[in-house]
Formats: sequence, structure tokens, C-alpha cells
Amino acid sequence: MTEAIRKNFASDNIAPVCPEVMAALARVNEGSAASYGEDSETSALAVRMADLFECRTWVFPVATGTAANSLALSAATAPFGAVICDQSAHINNDEAGAPEFFMHGARLMPLPSPDGRMDPGALDTALTLNAGGGVHTSPVQTLSLTQSTEWGTVYSLDQLDALTGRARAVGLTTHLDGARLGNAIAALGCSPAEATWKAGFDMVSLGGTKNGAMAAEAVLIFEEDLAQNFLRRIKRSGHLWSKQRYLSAQLMALFEDGLWLRHAVQANLMAQRLAHGLRRHPAASLPFDVQSNEVFVVLPERSVAALEALGFGFYRWTTPPGVDGVLIRLVTCWATEARDVDNLLDAL
Amino acid sequence: MTEAIRKNFASDNIAPVCPEVMAALARVNEGSAASYGEDSETSALAVRMADLFECRTWVFPVATGTAANSLALSAATAPFGAVICDQSAHINNDEAGAPEFFMHGARLMPLPSPDGRMDPGALDTALTLNAGGGVHTSPVQTLSLTQSTEWGTVYSLDQLDALTGRARAVGLTTHLDGARLGNAIAALGCSPAEATWKAGFDMVSLGGTKNGAMAAEAVLIFEEDLAQNFLRRIKRSGHLWSKQRYLSAQLMALFEDGLWLRHAVQANLMAQRLAHGLRRHPAASLPFDVQSNEVFVVLPERSVAALEALGFGFYRWTTPPGVDGVLIRLVTCWATEARDVDNLLDAL
Amino acid sequence: MTEAIRKNFASDNIAPVCPEVMAALARVNEGSAASYGEDSETSALAVRMADLFECRTWVFPVATGTAANSLALSAATAPFGAVICDQSAHINNDEAGAPEFFMHGARLMPLPSPDGRMDPGALDTALTLNAGGGVHTSPVQTLSLTQSTEWGTVYSLDQLDALTGRARAVGLTTHLDGARLGNAIAALGCSPAEATWKAGFDMVSLGGTKNGAMAAEAVLIFEEDLAQNFLRRIKRSGHLWSKQRYLSAQLMALFEDGLWLRHAVQANLMAQRLAHGLRRHPAASLPFDVQSNEVFVVLPERSVAALEALGFGFYRWTTPPGVDGVLIRLVTCWATEARDVDNLLDAL
Amino acid sequence: MTEAIRKNFASDNIAPVCPEVMAALARVNEGSAASYGEDSETSALAVRMADLFECRTWVFPVATGTAANSLALSAATAPFGAVICDQSAHINNDEAGAPEFFMHGARLMPLPSPDGRMDPGALDTALTLNAGGGVHTSPVQTLSLTQSTEWGTVYSLDQLDALTGRARAVGLTTHLDGARLGNAIAALGCSPAEATWKAGFDMVSLGGTKNGAMAAEAVLIFEEDLAQNFLRRIKRSGHLWSKQRYLSAQLMALFEDGLWLRHAVQANLMAQRLAHGLRRHPAASLPFDVQSNEVFVVLPERSVAALEALGFGFYRWTTPPGVDGVLIRLVTCWATEARDVDNLLDAL
Repeated sequence: MTEAIRKNFASDNIAPVCPEVMAALARVNEGSAASYGEDSETSALAVRMADLFECRTWVFPVATGTAANSLALSAATAPFGAVICDQSAHINNDEAGAPEFFMHGARLMPLPSPDGRMDPGALDTALTLNAGGGVHTSPVQTLSLTQSTEWGTVYSLDQLDALTGRARAVGLTTHLDGARLGNAIAALGCSPAEATWKAGFDMVSLGGTKNGAMAAEAVLIFEEDLAQNFLRRIKRSGHLWSKQRYLSAQLMALFEDGLWLRHAVQANLMAQRLAHGLRRHPAASLPFDVQSNEVFVVLPERSVAALEALGFGFYRWTTPPGVDGVLIRLVTCWATEARDVDNLLDAL
Repeated sequence: MTEAIRKNFASDNIAPVCPEVMAALARVNEGSAASYGEDSETSALAVRMADLFECRTWVFPVATGTAANSLALSAATAPFGAVICDQSAHINNDEAGAPEFFMHGARLMPLPSPDGRMDPGALDTALTLNAGGGVHTSPVQTLSLTQSTEWGTVYSLDQLDALTGRARAVGLTTHLDGARLGNAIAALGCSPAEATWKAGFDMVSLGGTKNGAMAAEAVLIFEEDLAQNFLRRIKRSGHLWSKQRYLSAQLMALFEDGLWLRHAVQANLMAQRLAHGLRRHPAASLPFDVQSNEVFVVLPERSVAALEALGFGFYRWTTPPGVDGVLIRLVTCWATEARDVDNLLDAL
Repeated sequence: MTEAIRKNFASDNIAPVCPEVMAALARVNEGSAASYGEDSETSALAVRMADLFECRTWVFPVATGTAANSLALSAATAPFGAVICDQSAHINNDEAGAPEFFMHGARLMPLPSPDGRMDPGALDTALTLNAGGGVHTSPVQTLSLTQSTEWGTVYSLDQLDALTGRARAVGLTTHLDGARLGNAIAALGCSPAEATWKAGFDMVSLGGTKNGAMAAEAVLIFEEDLAQNFLRRIKRSGHLWSKQRYLSAQLMALFEDGLWLRHAVQANLMAQRLAHGLRRHPAASLPFDVQSNEVFVVLPERSVAALEALGFGFYRWTTPPGVDGVLIRLVTCWATEARDVDNLLDAL
Repeated sequence: MTEAIRKNFASDNIAPVCPEVMAALARVNEGSAASYGEDSETSALAVRMADLFECRTWVFPVATGTAANSLALSAATAPFGAVICDQSAHINNDEAGAPEFFMHGARLMPLPSPDGRMDPGALDTALTLNAGGGVHTSPVQTLSLTQSTEWGTVYSLDQLDALTGRARAVGLTTHLDGARLGNAIAALGCSPAEATWKAGFDMVSLGGTKNGAMAAEAVLIFEEDLAQNFLRRIKRSGHLWSKQRYLSAQLMALFEDGLWLRHAVQANLMAQRLAHGLRRHPAASLPFDVQSNEVFVVLPERSVAALEALGFGFYRWTTPPGVDGVLIRLVTCWATEARDVDNLLDAL
């Protein structure tokens, strides 16, 4: 099958576009349409999302996760403010300073998060210290969490509640980087509403690209003032598509009938299969729970090199001091098949 | 035919995606591919563009024209600098402050441009004044021109030479907003090289979206330092696609065998047909030469309202003081057919 | 007398510091004091200003007018917004892009102002156009006026009312650049309150440096939210003095017993004396009313060169097209004496 | 004596202005002077500094240390870049995000520095990691160190060499935050040149305010391109004084005949006296070497509260976990007298 990712476990963004999204692009490719989001596909998407999230929801489609996150943070945070996030957050490590650019210099304050999940005690300490900082510090205005986390773990709803509750109690706006939110919801078995606004979030970057789209993420905002502020920043950052129907159509394909969750379930299952196989390998150790679609594993250098030589794709991660072996990351996705996983396990 | 724009002359961005671009998207939708521009389609595009422009060329695909322009200007201009552009420029009127955002507050200095083309005398005066400004002013570092212009006119190569030559003589970097460059090249009958670097430009925003793509523009840079500076800004502004093959494939479809120019020729012909018909209308007057694919015409309010009532799409422009009637803009594109034009002319 | 400016009419910032300000600096130079504005002199200044302006007032001392203006505008304007000002405004022409830097790229929209005063009709047109601009434009959020104007004229209170009333009706914040507000109040004979918040202003940059201080301006804000927003930006821009008592003391010297107005009266009188003399010169013409402490005059090149040769200091201004002669600016200040003026007139 | 700081050890910025600086302000308060740095005092300062630092030196006087640091960093670092500093740096903890504001979002990368001095191994690791980061990270472009450090320690010249040498080898620009450089030079007994450019620094923020001035720091730049870049940012950030003679005069008073070092020697001596006395206190422990004018000491809560009750001024610092007692900071300065120190020791 042409879509299989075969030997490439480097990321969920190396996968092709799923057939349903391609079909949706063809479907909307008819005649003229009003530009800049005034098209009917975008309107339909807004209705669909409000229904799916059971809430009044402002929906902004953009092409990349970095745009989604940075625009959201900039709508919530004054240029003189700060954002608390976990140390492992994508916004902290992988976006080349985009949050700071969009926020005009507001600072990220990363907190320790050993398995990707922020410790409520660390949040408490940071907020207390910041509250006493006065005019010489940047006041924290936003909390940003990641679900599922960058280490493949998943917060329970109670864990989210504890963090967002603490943040909201001191007036912070709450943002969820949900580039892989589908994987977390599939793991938790909760509703989209429970995983987002009912868990205390004001804004969500909801991933599409890693879940089968070409280039499409939806920023969901549950509060009108934030939404108005966000709206004014899209064109200004070059993220307003003139032919927006092609952005909205991708999201409709994923979200109109549950395709996003079917994709997530498949990716999670493949990660479980992979983890299960790896745990049986005598020299492998898995430092984190495998709860979504990312598997981190420490293997001997010799095994890692052998996999590379066989053409398997994955990233070598920074191995923590004191660990014997090499930490690598293996990512599954909607296009991963059981034979792809077995192929890798066999090779190992 | 489903692709026809029928009654919609509002812009060239209301059109659908051309079949060749859709086919290219399907073509690259095979298996896994390296992300963030490390894919083979992007490499092929770079080779193709260097060949087409007969020059060492750095090529950066992005999804929107605003991103292309703003990133280019920010690579050329220090935050304390300034950019000279024409009064009618898209960067000056239609991008919601994106250039200032990307340039971190550097200022646009718009010069009068009655028919969209900058007057060399005005440029000379502005540069002379700025040179004497000292530490209280923003030093001009960049010249940005638009070809074809926002009023549908086209600079001759000599006119471009005069402006870029003056700018380069005082050390400015030169940028061309070529959202509709294909239309200008079709009109001039020159080569892509003659229209760009041979005409004195260091950077070009080369449009794809208005010419048949879904969301794709190519920034072309002819100087290595500028290219390196540009490169560092793409991810930081959320404009680096993880699945970049789908961006590059759109551009390949347009630029690999001349489709972009065939599209431009069609759009220009339809504009000529429209202009020809309008000139025969006793109450119509066309304030500008029709040299590309935009037609501006002054019509009586009654006629304009009648067209609107019939469902024709176009924009009412700000009518200059003293003009009797309403100034409207009609835009043709690759998907405009003769019967679409005739239909409008008949209605009138 | 050592303080006289003698032949230097280039600006009111070429003057020395007045004796009262020097004495105030010596007065506060006693023992230790809490830093960063926690000192008693700063507290006393706040009380004095609230009393002088007959209003609850937040007072922020800073060292330069550019800092005062830019900080104020940035507290009032979102990075995606815009500020309407007059074409001749200091923020538009003389601050090297500081407003755009502090506002993170928000744009200035200068309106024609032939004699320095903004035309209410131009404001009305600009606001109407902007209101319909949608997501492709920068929404105007702030109006900034200058009193006395950069051409030496003074708005009447009715003229101010008309402009600020129009602005407030559509929700704008209003800012007054009052680098020379004392001169305007001296000319109008009104109270400080009447010239500021009663005339519809939310924020004022109140000048001290040009009026006898060393380096001191007071930003006055009449609205709490704006003041809180402003407060967070001072340290972040390097404008919070650790030894703030020395900033506040300068302002106390000027504002505690009316010294600022006595200085302004002297400067205005000297400007009147100068204008009166110039009007008697057969070849001189004065393009603007002389209402404060700036005198613009067109003189033959030969006369201007002669004055320069004699060591008189002043700036040649950009002479408007069609004017025969050279436009120069002569500025008087608190330290200008009658004999300084007569000396220049005699030389002429 | 009125200048004594008496019981206030909170900071060296709570002190008054020294008599020599006050005299210098009076000295230049004569007649008119060209504005914006075109005055003769500023010229004389440039000559003096070049002589003192034995090097071609560009000198920029500004009023605050935050302005000095932030302007310097912004001249060295692109908006997409990053700055390595030590964890305890003033730019990292005490400037309310000013570096990020001036650098337009470029990021600080703080490295562990247990006693305020950066570990060369940590620098090496950070640079190696960053070099492999690619387009998803912010490239480090600048190294900023602090001398004397925020914990009162002083780098040896060899230690500085090792760090700046490593940084320069990979093309970084090097900046020294020398708010208390005089104290370090007094401690090291080296020349100003040896402590700065001979130790590998391209730019220095040289403190005046904490050393007896009213509000004056000198940014020294030893490389022309950096200086030109810096120059363009001063007015734009509101840090160009119109009456600059009063800024330059303060610095002349300190630097023309060695007053800055005499002040530093006095402050250091008083810190030694204080440390000596504290070490004899049975319940006191000093976590760091006392090498300049800051003394950190852990005391029982009861003792700290008693000092506060007696009216002594100092800051309670964040006490590290596991430490029994309260960490406080005591700062001496040029105005500290032996009896002030003894008074505190007696009280204890």
C-alpha cells in the first residue's frame, strides 16, 4: 500500500495525507469561493466544531502547529508578560523562538517536567515567586500545557484540573498545545469537551497535520475577547489563507465523523504493539509510560546503529547522563501498520 | 465546467485550484518523506527554479504572499530601518501591518505612485532627504516594488532599471512583490531573469496562489547572505511546513513546464477582452492602462448596483474626489473564460 | 549671565538647566533613599501633580520625551493596532521609529495638518475608512495630538474637544504630546486640567527638559487600567531610574510653585518679540501664527547665510515648493533674554 | 555626614550622588550647548575613555544599566538569535524582560553558575548542543558575562579568557555586564584594558550609577560595525538625551582621574570589614567568597528580624533548600563608612 510509512518512525509528520483529506480537497475544488475565510466550508467547520466540543467555540484554521501555538499565546499574553510551560514543551524546544516573536518578547518560563507532565508543586512555587516579583520581573499571564506530552505520556483529567485550577485562581489564561490531542483523548476515553474547556482550558491548538492532514491545525477559543484579539493577528502574521476553503476542508474531513479519533486509536495501538515488543528485548529499557503514539527507548549503540544501517528512520535523543545506551524516539501514526512495527521488532 | 469563476471577478484568489496542481498533490502523496523541506520535491524545485531564472537562486516556498513579502523584507531590513514602497503597494495597504510585525517595527515609507508605478524623481527626493536625517530618523535600507502593480499597470524593464539602479547606488536591498509577476512577464514578453535579477532585484516574492495554486508562493533570493538570514526566520514565524512536499509540489506544477505563463496569458487576454468591451460602454471610463489582469473602471452607481443585483462579484474601490461615478475593480485569472467576460459585458 | 543662550536659537533643548532645578537636585542629595521610585520625593510629586491637575492622576517620571511618548502610546495600542497623529508630529518625524519599537510594530497614520493642527474632517474621514477595513488593516486605537504644535501654533480648547470627542466616540484612547504644553497653557490662559483631561485626553506627556530641567518628563495618566499597563513597561525599556529621587526632584522644582508657567511665559514673550521684529523686516514672511515659543520665518538665502556666518544657531527647515527663500526655525526658551532676541534682529 | 548611607545596605543604588559628580553637573551648566551628544563634554569623554582603555573605543552614555545591557545585546544579536548568560545574571533576573524587548524576542539561555561564575564546561556543552540545532532552534550569537558577579565573586582574568576564547572561536560576540566592573578591577589589580578587551570582550556596560553617579552608564564598544549598529538604536529606544552634556559630565567626574576606582576600593574594603565581622558571628555563614562589594550571609531568622526591627536595610534573598536560616544580601558602596559597618556588626 502506497501510504504506508514503512520504515520511517522519525515523526508523525513524515506520513502522507490520508485519502479522506485528499478527497475533501477535491470536493471543495469547485468554482469560485469567497476568500479569507468567508467561504461556506469555513462556516460549516465552525458549526461542526461547536457541536463536537459542546460549547460556543471560535475556530481559526491555520497551516502549522507553530502558528497555532504562537498566535494563541500572543493573544493571551502582553509583551511584558510571561508564559509558564513545561521544560519539554514544543514551544520551548522546537519552534525556533516563534512564541517570543509572536508575543513580542514575552518570556517562556519552563518548569521541570520529568515525564512531560508539569508538577503542580513546581507550578505553585513558580506562581508564588512570580507574584512577589514586582516591576523587575515579567508577570506570568498564561499557562501552557501539552497533551499528549512530548514524552508520550498523558495527563489524567484530574491532573489537568489541578494545574488549570491553580492557574485560573490567579487569573492566568490557559492554553493547551494539542498537536496530539486526539491521541490523548483516545487514551483517556473522554469527550473532547472533557479534555479541553471542562478541564480548564481557554484555548486549544488542535492538531490536524500529524493526524492525517496536509497542513491544517484548528485553534479553538472558548472566550470571546480572546477570540477577537486572536483574529487580529492572523493576517498580520501571514497566516490567513486567501483560499481558506482548502484549509477548512482538511479539518472537516478529520473532524466531521470521528476520523481524527480512529486515526489516533490506530497510532496508539501501534505504539502499544511497539512498546510491547521492545519490552521483551533484553537490552531495551523504556523510560516513560507509553500512553499515546510516541515510544522512547534506550538501546545499545550497536542496536541503534544496526537499525539505522537497515534504513529505519528515527531520532537519536539527548541521552540523560548516567544512562548506558542511546535514547531514541519512535513515533507511530495513522498510517503505521502492524507489519511496519513487526518489521522493526524483527530487525531488532 | 466546474472550475469556471463564472460571475466572480472580485479577485484572482476566489478561483479554485487548477487541475495540474491537484494532480501534483496526488503525485507526491506516496509513502513517507523527510519533513521540513528535506524532501526530494523541494530539492527538485530548487533545481528547477535555478534553471528557470538562469542564476544561482535560493528558493523558499511559503503558503501566503503576506508571509513571502514580510519575511523577505525582514531579512533585508534592520528593525531600526525603513522600506521605501509605492503608496498603492499591497504591503502598505492590505497586509494588516505584517511587514512591520516581521521587521520588528521598521517603517514603510510609501511614495506617490499615481498609476501604481513609482516615480524615479520621488524616489530620488526621498533618498536624498533620508540620507541627511541622522540619528533622529529611520535609515532606508530596502526598496520594494510591485510588478504587475496594484493598479494593473506594468513597469517596463527600463523603468525598473532606473529605480533599482538608484536604490542600489546607495546600498539598498531591492525586493519585488511579484504576486502577479507572471502576468507582467506575459505582458512584457521578457525572460524571468530579465524581469527579476537582471532588472536589479535581490529578492522576489513569486506568486503561485493567484495563478492556480492552492496556497503556495516562492521567495527567490539571489544573494547568499540574504538567503541565510531569511532561512532563520521561516520556522520562527510558523511558516515552515512539516509536510513541505505538498507546498513544493504546487510550485513544481506551475513552474516546471511553463504553466504559470500560460495561466498568465489567459488572465491577461481576458482582461483585454473585458477592457475592450468596457471602453465601448458610453458611461464607462478606465483610469489606468490595462496591462495585466486587473481592470479598474468608473461606472455610474446605477450600473454598479445593477451588476451587484445580478450576482456579479467585484470590489468597490475608494473613488477619487471629483470623479463622477463609482470606481470598481474587476480581476481576471487563469480560470476566467471568454463567456464569463461576455456575460458581464452583456449584463452591463 | 552664564545661563543665557546668547546666539543659539536652534532648540529649547540647547539651554542649560535652570537654577531652581539644580537646587532641587542638591536638596535631595542627602543620605540613602529607596530606589526605583519608592523614595519620598516621587511620592510628593504624585501628590503635587494630582493637586495641580485637579484629578486622580498616575504620574510616571522618565528622562526623555521620546520615552514618554512611546511608552504612553504602547500602553494604549495593541501591537496590531494603529495611532492617528498629525503629519508634523514629533512621534512621526523625529523619534527614529521609537513609537513603532515600543508598540511592537503598530503603525502611525499621519493626517494632513497644514499648520500643525489636525483637521477634524481629515480625522473623520480616516476613522470612517478604517472602520470598514476589516482583517486586512490595522485598527486605529489611539489618537495622539501635539500641543503646542510642532509649527508653533496652539489648539483652542474647542478645537481639542472636537478632535478628542470624535475619537472617544469610537473608543480610541487619547494622548497628548505636551513637550511644550506649558507654552500652550501660557498662551491659552487656561488651567492644566482644562488643557488636558477636561479637553478629552487620557494620557499626557508633560515636558520638563525643554522648560528648564536636565532630563525629566512626566507622563500623566488619568485612567487606572492604562496606568497599570504603562507601569509594566518602564523597567522593561530601561527607563526606570534606580535613583529616581533625582528625576522627581527636577519635576518638583518646575511644578511645585508655577515655575513651569513662568518659564513658558518668558519663552512665549521672547517669541512674540522675535516675531514682531521679523514682521518688520521687508524680506521676511512668517507662514504660521506665532502662538508659543517657535518662530518659523522665510528669509532670503543671503540673510540666512549671513546669520549663520555671525554664529547664530538655528535649523534650516525643508522649504515648501514654490516658496522663494529659505524657511528657518527659531526657538526661544526660559533662558532667552530680550537682548538675545534684539541681538539677532539687529544682525538681520 | 549627610552622604552616609547609615543603616541602608539594600543596594549600592540607594546611595546619594558623590560630590564630584554634583560639581561636574554644575560645571557644565553654562550657556547653550549642542544637543543629542554633539556637545564638547561628550567629545571629551570619548577621548578620555579611549585613553583609559588604551584602545579605539566607541563610547555611548546612557542613564541606566538596563538600557546599557539591552542596547548592547540588541546590537550583537539578531531577533532570531540567542544569548548565553549565567543563571544569576541581572539581564536574566532583574530587568523585567528588557533584553528580550530590545532584541525583539531573541532568547536568553542561562547556564548554571553556582557562585555567579559560568562554568566553562557548561558553556562548551551548550554551544555544542546549539550548533546541531538546525532551523528549529535559536542560534546562539552572543555571550554575556557579569563582572563582578551578582553573588559578589570576581572572575580571574584566566577564567574570563577561557570563556570568551571558547565563545569567539565559534563566532559569538562577547558582552560584559560591568555594572560593578570597578569593584572587580579594584579586586584584581589589573588595568581596565586587561579586564575588558584584552580579556576578550567586544562590548562593555560600564557602570556609573552604583559607583557615585546620578544616572549614568557608559557602553564601550571596541568594534566599529557593532558601534554603528548600536548607535542607531539609542534614539529609537528613548535613550538619547537632548542635554547629553549632563550625562557625559557624570562619567567624566568618575573616569577622568580615577575616582571610580577609589570609590570601588572603599566599597570593597567595607565589604571585607563586614565579612570579617560576620565570620566571627557564631551563627553566621557566608556561602560565597567576598571579592567585591556584596556580602551574602545566612543568619538565623531571629537575627534577621532583629536587624530589620532596628531599621537596617537589606534584602532577604531566596534561601536555597536545605539551608537552615535566612539568606540576606548586604551591599556596600563608595559612601559606606567604617562606622556604618561597625554599627551593623554591633547590632548583630
